Amino acid sequence: MIKAYAAHEAKGELQAFEYDPGELGAHEVEIDVTFCGICHSDLSVIDDSWGMTQYPVVPGHEVVGTVGKVGKEVKGEWLGKVVGLGWQSGFCNDCGHCHAGDQNLCAESQATIVGHHGGFADKVRAMVDAVVPIPDGVDLESAGPLFCGGITVFNPLVQFDVKPTDRVAVIGIGGLGHMALQFLNAWGCEVTAFTSSESKRKEALELGAHDTLNSRDAAEIEAAAGRFDLILSTVNVKLDWNLYLNTLKAKGRLHFVGATLEPLDLNVFSLIMGQRSVSGSPIGSPATIASMLEFAKLHEIQPVVETFKMDQVNEAIERLRSGKAHYRIVLSNEN
Amino acid sequence: MIKAYAAHEAKGELQAFEYDPGELGAHEVEIDVTFCGICHSDLSVIDDSWGMTQYPVVPGHEVVGTVGKVGKEVKGEWLGKVVGLGWQSGFCNDCGHCHAGDQNLCAESQATIVGHHGGFADKVRAMVDAVVPIPDGVDLESAGPLFCGGITVFNPLVQFDVKPTDRVAVIGIGGLGHMALQFLNAWGCEVTAFTSSESKRKEALELGAHDTLNSRDAAEIEAAAGRFDLILSTVNVKLDWNLYLNTLKAKGRLHFVGATLEPLDLNVFSLIMGQRSVSGSPIGSPATIASMLEFAKLHEIQPVVETFKMDQVNEAIERLRSGKAHYRIVLSNEN
Repeated sequence: MIKAYAAHEAKGELQAFEYDPGELGAHEVEIDVTFCGICHSDLSVIDDSWGMTQYPVVPGHEVVGTVGKVGKEVKGEWLGKVVGLGWQSGFCNDCGHCHAGDQNLCAESQATIVGHHGGFADKVRAMVDAVVPIPDGVDLESAGPLFCGGITVFNPLVQFDVKPTDRVAVIGIGGLGHMALQFLNAWGCEVTAFTSSESKRKEALELGAHDTLNSRDAAEIEAAAGRFDLILSTVNVKLDWNLYLNTLKAKGRLHFVGATLEPLDLNVFSLIMGQRSVSGSPIGSPATIASMLEFAKLHEIQPVVETFKMDQVNEAIERLRSGKAHYRIVLSNEN
Repeated sequence: MIKAYAAHEAKGELQAFEYDPGELGAHEVEIDVTFCGICHSDLSVIDDSWGMTQYPVVPGHEVVGTVGKVGKEVKGEWLGKVVGLGWQSGFCNDCGHCHAGDQNLCAESQATIVGHHGGFADKVRAMVDAVVPIPDGVDLESAGPLFCGGITVFNPLVQFDVKPTDRVAVIGIGGLGHMALQFLNAWGCEVTAFTSSESKRKEALELGAHDTLNSRDAAEIEAAAGRFDLILSTVNVKLDWNLYLNTLKAKGRLHFVGATLEPLDLNVFSLIMGQRSVSGSPIGSPATIASMLEFAKLHEIQPVVETFKMDQVNEAIERLRSGKAHYRIVLSNEN
């Protein structure tokens, strides 16, 4: 039996929950969970905000642990390996995206916490292809958030060929944004943080920003016209996107990894005259996650986390809901 | 004196107009105009739709002619050369865009018909850097529209690395779209035309489309979900852009060369989940125009034009305004 914490109804508190995972699939591994980050997407699934939750659900998709069991068709030396697991726990391995190494875009991929039980547990299972070894030397307690929030902000740098000579701004210095600042600084870019909070302004500079702009000061944003090659938006609230579009250089890109429900009311003239792009992307492929982990190790990048015991999961969730998480919360099975 | 046709007020008829261009600039050439296309942007400037017209204005920025005079600092053999001139008639040559070969994005560029007199005339002047020689073998009567409409649809193929293996759709089969079909077919792409007109459907297939979809049939568009790598929109009316976004493959791009005044009300989830981009671009650089002309020559691509005598300019404009142009109108100074 796997000992876990599950939500049984929308917005419900998590309760201790045991389930029998059945026989281990031939291509699966079972991970003994050491740490598991909490992501806003866990809240969305607990609350059924996207209308696709299947209850009871065990949340948790920023898993760090050790492979304890290996399916009979799994190749390679996985037993005892320290690994991570993110939003996806399996792929079809049979579509054009999977064949091209873009498993993160696979329409038939298995989400770790939709129709599958996640990492708020002592164990979690996944197809071995979706599990990524963590290099020696990476801090394990803080590594979980790399597997969802981290890869979400790292992947666009790879996908859209961001160059070290680029000037990049990050909107929203929270769970995703604080990792973006670190990655972009190590990437060689000139990094600007848009934030409205004085305390976050100082921390943004410590995390790797070279400059900050007040996201509530329209005049300050207007004065930055034509400045950035890339803006990475991590927020889920509607902003004056055309104001931000104008802070892009010609050929610049406004890229969304955070989603707002309101449509983006973009001025097409601004796109045309400046040859600008607006785009979005989800998490990254296992190969990109592996590449991110090596990059994070080399540059000593790590999420800033607060750790709660696994049995404090409801307190931890409440802290995240209240907006006080600084910057990411991790649940621990360690004593 | 240059003999031209000018508008003296917004939406006014063009009238015969003579002006003294003064001494030829050291870096200018004077082109004896043979043909000049009429573009929708000429109407916008005649009507002052963009609030930047300076009257009297001589429209015309799809010029084909022969260099008749050469400024004293102009290098190379330009006298007697057959050339074309498009939307831009000069650049600052001193900014990052100019230095990078992106003169089309130069903020200080001179527009041929804004604060400068254009090609509805016997002669027109321009800085030599903005003038592009036309290769032998290109049909001159139809070549004018390549210099604005043509380069506008050709440039994105270069800027965004469109591949011959891409599936591409064109929205709007008019002055720009009918050239886009020809370019994309020669580029090697699988080409689909979105059109609502049965007669245009047949012509689109003749121009290079492999398939057509009815742009007024939402069900037909829905059925094309996930099909295209690129959609090139040449229209200036608001469509259901999210419907078109969904016809893109993952990593696909919806690209605007036609502008609508209404904002693009885009669904950010569609961008994120499919790693999709939305973008725009204006005309292209002189080097890209030169490359387009060689490509057009090799593949025997030419705008489909109707020719009017220069002194029939008002009739020609009226035909364009009425939407009957098939597909592009050219004014001729030939007898």
